[in-house]
Amino acid sequence: MSDQQHTEISALGEFGLIDRLTEGLTHHNASTLKGVGDDGAVLEYKDSEVLVTTDLLLEGIHFDLTYVPLKHLGYKAAVVNFSDIYAMNGRPRQITVSLGISKRFTVEHIEVLYSGIKLACEIYGVDLIGGDTTSSRSGLVISITCIGDAPKGKIVYRDGAKDTDLICVSGDLGAAYMGLQLLEREKVASAGQKDFVPNFAGKEYLVERQLKPEARRDIIEELDKAGIVPTSMMDVSDGLSSELLHICKQSHVGCRVYEDRIPIDYQTAIMAEELNMNLVTAALNGGEDYELLFTVPLSQHDAIDKLPGIKLIGHITREDLGCALVTRDGGEIPLRAQGWNHMSE
Amino acid sequence: MSDQQHTEISALGEFGLIDRLTEGLTHHNASTLKGVGDDGAVLEYKDSEVLVTTDLLLEGIHFDLTYVPLKHLGYKAAVVNFSDIYAMNGRPRQITVSLGISKRFTVEHIEVLYSGIKLACEIYGVDLIGGDTTSSRSGLVISITCIGDAPKGKIVYRDGAKDTDLICVSGDLGAAYMGLQLLEREKVASAGQKDFVPNFAGKEYLVERQLKPEARRDIIEELDKAGIVPTSMMDVSDGLSSELLHICKQSHVGCRVYEDRIPIDYQTAIMAEELNMNLVTAALNGGEDYELLFTVPLSQHDAIDKLPGIKLIGHITREDLGCALVTRDGGEIPLRAQGWNHMSE
Repeated sequence: MSDQQHTEISALGEFGLIDRLTEGLTHHNASTLKGVGDDGAVLEYKDSEVLVTTDLLLEGIHFDLTYVPLKHLGYKAAVVNFSDIYAMNGRPRQITVSLGISKRFTVEHIEVLYSGIKLACEIYGVDLIGGDTTSSRSGLVISITCIGDAPKGKIVYRDGAKDTDLICVSGDLGAAYMGLQLLEREKVASAGQKDFVPNFAGKEYLVERQLKPEARRDIIEELDKAGIVPTSMMDVSDGLSSELLHICKQSHVGCRVYEDRIPIDYQTAIMAEELNMNLVTAALNGGEDYELLFTVPLSQHDAIDKLPGIKLIGHITREDLGCALVTRDGGEIPLRAQGWNHMSE
Repeated sequence: MSDQQHTEISALGEFGLIDRLTEGLTHHNASTLKGVGDDGAVLEYKDSEVLVTTDLLLEGIHFDLTYVPLKHLGYKAAVVNFSDIYAMNGRPRQITVSLGISKRFTVEHIEVLYSGIKLACEIYGVDLIGGDTTSSRSGLVISITCIGDAPKGKIVYRDGAKDTDLICVSGDLGAAYMGLQLLEREKVASAGQKDFVPNFAGKEYLVERQLKPEARRDIIEELDKAGIVPTSMMDVSDGLSSELLHICKQSHVGCRVYEDRIPIDYQTAIMAEELNMNLVTAALNGGEDYELLFTVPLSQHDAIDKLPGIKLIGHITREDLGCALVTRDGGEIPLRAQGWNHMSE
C-alpha cells in the first residue's frame, strides 16, 4: 500500500471522489441506458431475462491487504460476481460498486482499487453503472452487485440435475486454496523482517489463482458453440463438495464423484505435500477456484469429452443413493461440505 | 439489543442462517421470476425501463445501535433505497440484502433486523430476491441494492430543470436531523445511568422521522394521477441545499428558494430553539428527510398548487444567476452544500 501521492479523501469529499473515480467511464452494453450520476442507473432488457447477484467483501474476513494488492482485490471483487452470472449461463452486463473506506486509505489507494475493477469490466465487457461511497470505521468494505442477462429459456439453475447425468468441472481445483496457504505462510515468515522477499518460486500458478481468478466465460461460450445446455450449473466458490451438495439437494438427486477424476494441477499437489495436507480434501473443499461445475445428460458424453478444459468427474444418481466420493480403491466416502464457509469460522 | 433467546450464528452457519431468514418469502411482482436460492435471482422486464440503486450502511457511521432498534434499522435501510427509485419516478420491485455480522449479534438479532426489512418490502410491495451473508470483524454492515422500473419515457432525471420551472418539495424538512440531535442528546444524558428513560415528550415526530422514514410513494402516485411529470427530481437524503445544487449543476440552471416557503414542522422549530440552532440552516442542510424535491413547468402552477403535501418553494433561473436563498427581508444568500456528507466528516 505504498505510493507516491497522498491525497486525503476528505479533501475531495464523497462527490469529488466519485467524480474522480468515474471520470471517462464508457459503456459496452446496449442495455445500459444511463450509468453513474443520478439517484439510480437506467437499464433496458426487452428480450432477455435479467440476472442479479451480489457479493459483500470485508477486510480481515475475505482479504488481507498485507499480501493482496489493491488492484488485484478490485479485479477479483468484480470477477467473482461475473462468475455467478456465468454460472447461470448468463452474461454479466453491469455492476454497482459500493465502498466503505477507512481513514488509512488515500484517494490514490482507492484509484488503484478502482483500476482493478475497471480492468475486469474492460476485459469482460461489463459496465460500471453506480454505487455508494462512504467512510468506514474499520477497514475496507466492498459490496458489488452484478446484473446480467440470458436469452429466454437459456438460464441454467441448480435444480435441474437428473439421474444418470454426467458431472463436469472446468479447469482444476484446489489451487486458489493452496495459493492462500502459501501467502499466509510467507506472511508469517515475513513478520518483523524488513525487506523480506516472499518465496513463490515454482508456485506462481497458485498465487495467481488466489489473487487474480478469472470467470470462465470461455467455457460458457464453448458450451454454447457446441450446442450443449447444462441441466444444472454452479461456480465453485465454496469448494466442490459444498457446491455438489447444493446441486444434489436442490435437484433431489445423489451423486458419485471419482477421486481419480478430480482435476488437480501439479503445483497444487506439490504444495499439499509440503504442507502435509490431504490433496483430495484440499481439492474438494478449498474454495475460490471459480471454475464451473455442471451436469449434462449422458447422451452428451461424446460431445463434452471433445471439449478442452472440461473434465468428467462423476455422475448423478437417484436421491436415495446419497452423495459420495469414490476413492481410488473403490471405497465410498460420503461427501461433506466443510468448505469455505465464512459464517462458521 | 436485549432478547430472550441467544442462538449463536455459527450454530446455523451461513446457509442455515439464510434458510431461516428467507423462509416463506413470497413475491409481489410479476417481474420476479426467481428469488433466493441460486447463484443469482432471475427477473423479467419486457416493457419498462429498469432502475438500479444501491446503499451501503455501516455501524458507527450511518447508525448507532445504542438508540436505533434493529427492526427500525432494517425498515429504514430498505426504505431509503425505495426512495431513490421513486425519486426517478419509478416503482421499486426487488431488493438484494447483504449483511456483514460481527460476533456480538445472535440469530435472533438478525431475525429482528430482517423483520424490519420484510415489513418495508410488504408495505411497499417489493420482493427480497437475494443477497450475501458473512461475518464481520467489527460491527454491522448492510448493503442493499434495489431494482425498480418505470414505463418507457417516464423516468425523471436530475438534469431536466429549465429556467422558470417551479421548485417543489413534499412534506417538511429538517425533522429527521433534529430527531438525530435529540437521540444523541438523550444518549449523552443516559451515559452511565441504569434504567434511564429518554425524554421524547412532544418530540415524537422528530424521533419517528429519524428512525422510521417513509419513501414518498404517495407523492409519485398523486403526481401520476394529476398527469404531472416533473422536469427533474431527487430525494432529499443529503439536505435540500445539496440536492438543489445537484439539480442545478446537472441541468445547467440557477435557482431561487424562498426562506419563508420552506416547510418546517413546529416540533422541528421548537427543537432548533432548544438547541440554539439556526432553523433554516437545519432545514436546508439536515439530511435524511427522504422527501421529494422536484421541478415542474410554470404552466403547471395551478395543478401543483391543488395537490396536498406539496409546497412550492422557489423557481429555476438562468445558470448565470447562480443558486441562492431569498431571505425574509429580501436579501440573497448563495446556497452551499454543507449537508450530510459522510466522506468529509
